[in-house]
Amino acid sequence: MSDLVWKLDLPPIDPLPERTQKYLAICEEKLGIVPNVLRAYLFDMAKFDGFIAMYNDLMLGESGLSKLEREMIAVVVSSINRCWYCQVAHGAAVREFSGDPALGEAMVMNYRAAPLDARTRAMLDFAALVTEASAKVSEADRDALRGHGFSERDIFDIIAVVGFFSMSNRVASATGMEPNPEYHARAR
Amino acid sequence: MSDLVWKLDLPPIDPLPERTQKYLAICEEKLGIVPNVLRAYLFDMAKFDGFIAMYNDLMLGESGLSKLEREMIAVVVSSINRCWYCQVAHGAAVREFSGDPALGEAMVMNYRAAPLDARTRAMLDFAALVTEASAKVSEADRDALRGHGFSERDIFDIIAVVGFFSMSNRVASATGMEPNPEYHARAR
Amino acid sequence: MSDLVWKLDLPPIDPLPERTQKYLAICEEKLGIVPNVLRAYLFDMAKFDGFIAMYNDLMLGESGLSKLEREMIAVVVSSINRCWYCQVAHGAAVREFSGDPALGEAMVMNYRAAPLDARTRAMLDFAALVTEASAKVSEADRDALRGHGFSERDIFDIIAVVGFFSMSNRVASATGMEPNPEYHARAR
Amino acid sequence: MSDLVWKLDLPPIDPLPERTQKYLAICEEKLGIVPNVLRAYLFDMAKFDGFIAMYNDLMLGESGLSKLEREMIAVVVSSINRCWYCQVAHGAAVREFSGDPALGEAMVMNYRAAPLDARTRAMLDFAALVTEASAKVSEADRDALRGHGFSERDIFDIIAVVGFFSMSNRVASATGMEPNPEYHARAR
Amino acid sequence: MSDLVWKLDLPPIDPLPERTQKYLAICEEKLGIVPNVLRAYLFDMAKFDGFIAMYNDLMLGESGLSKLEREMIAVVVSSINRCWYCQVAHGAAVREFSGDPALGEAMVMNYRAAPLDARTRAMLDFAALVTEASAKVSEADRDALRGHGFSERDIFDIIAVVGFFSMSNRVASATGMEPNPEYHARAR
Amino acid sequence: MSDLVWKLDLPPIDPLPERTQKYLAICEEKLGIVPNVLRAYLFDMAKFDGFIAMYNDLMLGESGLSKLEREMIAVVVSSINRCWYCQVAHGAAVREFSGDPALGEAMVMNYRAAPLDARTRAMLDFAALVTEASAKVSEADRDALRGHGFSERDIFDIIAVVGFFSMSNRVASATGMEPNPEYHARAR
Repeated sequence: MSDLVWKLDLPPIDPLPERTQKYLAICEEKLGIVPNVLRAYLFDMAKFDGFIAMYNDLMLGESGLSKLEREMIAVVVSSINRCWYCQVAHGAAVREFSGDPALGEAMVMNYRAAPLDARTRAMLDFAALVTEASAKVSEADRDALRGHGFSERDIFDIIAVVGFFSMSNRVASATGMEPNPEYHARAR
Repeated sequence: MSDLVWKLDLPPIDPLPERTQKYLAICEEKLGIVPNVLRAYLFDMAKFDGFIAMYNDLMLGESGLSKLEREMIAVVVSSINRCWYCQVAHGAAVREFSGDPALGEAMVMNYRAAPLDARTRAMLDFAALVTEASAKVSEADRDALRGHGFSERDIFDIIAVVGFFSMSNRVASATGMEPNPEYHARAR
Repeated sequence: MSDLVWKLDLPPIDPLPERTQKYLAICEEKLGIVPNVLRAYLFDMAKFDGFIAMYNDLMLGESGLSKLEREMIAVVVSSINRCWYCQVAHGAAVREFSGDPALGEAMVMNYRAAPLDARTRAMLDFAALVTEASAKVSEADRDALRGHGFSERDIFDIIAVVGFFSMSNRVASATGMEPNPEYHARAR
Repeated sequence: MSDLVWKLDLPPIDPLPERTQKYLAICEEKLGIVPNVLRAYLFDMAKFDGFIAMYNDLMLGESGLSKLEREMIAVVVSSINRCWYCQVAHGAAVREFSGDPALGEAMVMNYRAAPLDARTRAMLDFAALVTEASAKVSEADRDALRGHGFSERDIFDIIAVVGFFSMSNRVASATGMEPNPEYHARAR
Repeated sequence: MSDLVWKLDLPPIDPLPERTQKYLAICEEKLGIVPNVLRAYLFDMAKFDGFIAMYNDLMLGESGLSKLEREMIAVVVSSINRCWYCQVAHGAAVREFSGDPALGEAMVMNYRAAPLDARTRAMLDFAALVTEASAKVSEADRDALRGHGFSERDIFDIIAVVGFFSMSNRVASATGMEPNPEYHARAR
Repeated sequence: MSDLVWKLDLPPIDPLPERTQKYLAICEEKLGIVPNVLRAYLFDMAKFDGFIAMYNDLMLGESGLSKLEREMIAVVVSSINRCWYCQVAHGAAVREFSGDPALGEAMVMNYRAAPLDARTRAMLDFAALVTEASAKVSEADRDALRGHGFSERDIFDIIAVVGFFSMSNRVASATGMEPNPEYHARAR
């Protein structure tokens, strides 16, 4: 199976722990698929558990940012990095969460072309800056977000989502990870 | 305290869970300091726990890559991203693990100038490629590593370390995280 | 109408020449829409006529390249330039002509991730090179195409399509041109 | 002949249509030469006709921009793209139209070093932006031109000239097109 | 006078040392002008003397590289850096030393378009590499030059000329230095 | 000896002129070492003398900039160019002149992370601009320095130091020059 999801020959451990089997079953029930990134990480339970703990906290946990906002950031980062897997999977999430297929496309193609309110645009401009030139981020950049009403925790969360996809994009692209084909037709 | 370690006004939760207090005490005992990145994450236990779980697995866990190799990758990535915190902290780690202060400096300044064997150079060239242009990584690049004797798992680990510091560099730089001053003089 | 299709206040001439009215009617009949780029150019008949003459010759006229190949090149160029209009419109064309929605997505997101035969990959690598660094194109690059069986005329056509979208991307992006929303759901 | 003008082996059709022979004769009479770009396109009359229709409309037709302004834009674009053919041919045009050889040189070498009035500098800064980063052009950039008195049509024309040379530069460079040597000594 | 030659208000010392007056008189006699770079440096004799000593040794002194080769390198570096002063002054030198006006133009516009022998092309490719990415130069790059028959001293001289113009380009551009207008018409 | 200091096989002239022997002896006495850059240049006395004359004037001579300020500029330029030799040697100088090891590290790693007063930050931002994009420097950039109290001569000196290290970085990196190992431990 592993060679269908990425280009590394690292098969899942066998048998999988029961809790992992349950987790995958829940994914399949809720999402209709087991995302290939989860299948890929099944070769090592510490890495699988670490990945889903961080992902679930960041993208699904409590935050001043809506889930849609977090997914928009995810796609903008993944578009800059041109990550095939993450643009496909999280572009679908933007379409689903927003009910606006064009918005998902714009996050992939050029977020600057989307008709966004000033606060959201500032959030994505900051995300793009952190993606492309984090060493140049200054207090003035954080203050611009504060001026749009983002809290300290919101600012952390924006940065953390950018960071997480800066990691995931590289893991997915450099391992040749392939997204589940089901994403393409979703929420069009 | 939090404003000494970064530019976000997110104080540690108070009181800290007992297991966290113990963890920090062990850090201080083993390292002589509590790294500021840990202090920074104390505002939210899920994020703290997620960070240390992933970090400890990747950088200190079992791997075909030595701890020094993982630290060398960490510094090469952090140098490309010009992350102040990570170059300081992991530059010190390279000096300590190698016993070669000049090697730590070279990882920070220009890894191409270091007198490395071909296998290590290939590892760092791949790490630089994943850092700078992950969307262009191809099977040929992975095969080059295989040709130097890296296993599938080794290749994953190289990519995962690059990914982790691609994340951490952005979190540290974009939050204005400041490294503990003790690092500077270590292992010179 | 003009402000729905772009950000320049240049209304269509009124009345439109009869041949133009007929042309637009045929478009609507065949495509189901009048592409906004055509509406935009209605402010000046010389520019409208020049644009469609060149477009129709290049993209629809006789060529050793299939229409799908020409559309794939169009999207790769438009993706590098992050042109919102052209990625939407020509991404749809790739999906329609290929019957493969994932292929259209890959041209937008990262053509290097698509499972292409070596000849097609060489064609798109050359297109990317001409898009990004035309001043560095050498006889060796053209010879590589010849080695894949491309004729002199094929090579011209690849270059001409790259050139045309290098122009159209800039016209569309710099005028704030908006693609017809109907494209998004097509051929998914 | 064709191999003197570019690196593609695509000979002119033979015999040329009478209207084309006349067109070339007029060129030679007016310019003293037949520009090599015209010779190159003689392999296909639809492409030849499409090229000269668009060129003549854009560069010689009615516009709020003077012919010199259009040529200055052409050279700035061609300089960014380092197109040998277009810098030679249109650098000569700037020298001729302005009567100022140093101005032609500055457009080739670094337009920022030329002593330009604020309106012309704004026009060329916008042209450079559209050349280098069209996906980032915003309404604020167009408003800056409006503030310098450029009309909606002027803005279109600036963008269209940038677009045309973004195309022509790539066609000329990627086909190895060679400028007529007569240009070098003109208007020095 | 100083504001005619650059944008810094640093007048020449007055009176100039006799030997400097003589040096300028010889320049004027031999070149027909006193190059503005020399006028600029007259505000400080140590800097004037240091500049001409290094310049005269590198560009006019004994070397395995011909004066034309050194001037070609100078223009390629200055073209990459888009230095107005140095492209004008040294472009003229290439035209004069080669008797080939088109060669001077090609060095300014795109050296890759010039019909150069393989040895000269390798020299200029190396010069471009040192200009753009000196930290990536490796023994393999130097060996490529050795393979074309360049001696150790020749390699040093190529690097030294690149270095000198990497300095002079920045001094000229950042001080707003203006080339003598007489250069434009020379050797056309 | 020469192969220990760089990768060119250019041995020192033998015997060295007496004044050069004295100069090196004084260096050794004052610095504890003979910097390898001086050893490298011993193959040609005109080049040696030209280099030290310019270096000593710029870095040690009278200037409105302190020696520490000049060294900070030197390291910022060398960090952008990732020059191994110059970051090592001049990073040590910043540590020594400032008595602040962290400041030397910050100049190497990311000067934007250092706690600098506004005037010093403006100086280094200008130095970075001249290093990376000298063709874009404008009177507004020089006026910003004037607004911080820098004199015309100070501005020249900033530019000249940037220029000098733009040269030296390329000479050191492209010749494979190796810094004296003694620098690493100094002033830590």
